[in-house]
Amino acid sequence: MNPTDLNKIIHEPVRLGILSALMTRETLTFPELKEMLKVTDGNLSVHASILEKHGLIRSAKDFYGKKPRTTFTITDDGRAQFRRYLEELEQLLHQLKG
Amino acid sequence: MNPTDLNKIIHEPVRLGILSALMTRETLTFPELKEMLKVTDGNLSVHASILEKHGLIRSAKDFYGKKPRTTFTITDDGRAQFRRYLEELEQLLHQLKG
Repeated sequence: MNPTDLNKIIHEPVRLGILSALMTRETLTFPELKEMLKVTDGNLSVHASILEKHGLIRSAKDFYGKKPRTTFTITDDGRAQFRRYLEELEQLLHQLKG
Repeated sequence: MNPTDLNKIIHEPVRLGILSALMTRETLTFPELKEMLKVTDGNLSVHASILEKHGLIRSAKDFYGKKPRTTFTITDDGRAQFRRYLEELEQLLHQLKG
């Protein structure tokens, strides 16, 4: 297992954080994710759209009172790819700890 | 443990590959690393110089016959930071596997 074989879409820290959060809470709002991951609005939206483009999460827009709200949910494919990534990461970790 | 807290200098796949290889073989040449990690010359030199700039590896240039050769070695600080990174990665993995 070579680190360069890891799923690059998932491995990036902010994206790994978004998926990890959504694996536990399935659906989260933009401000909730921003607070959990301690990232900027710009950083969060860039990485959320990369995950959405690759079908790992989907977003929905609605109104909370008068305020527009964006909510993210992990997809079944996102869940499956994340589990595969964890297995590969575990394999790599055992290899590295030698 | 938040994925965004992981050591970003080490976490990037090519850099993680360079350090992993040097943890086992301590010193490797540019072509050896390139072959092991299956990366381009450009990609390897960009990431090797980031690691060197942060004091995690050092490079040496000499001649092998008439051909110039670059060799990389992990530093003591590189070793220490890599071990801390592995501990944090393991902690994160346990957390994610829930």
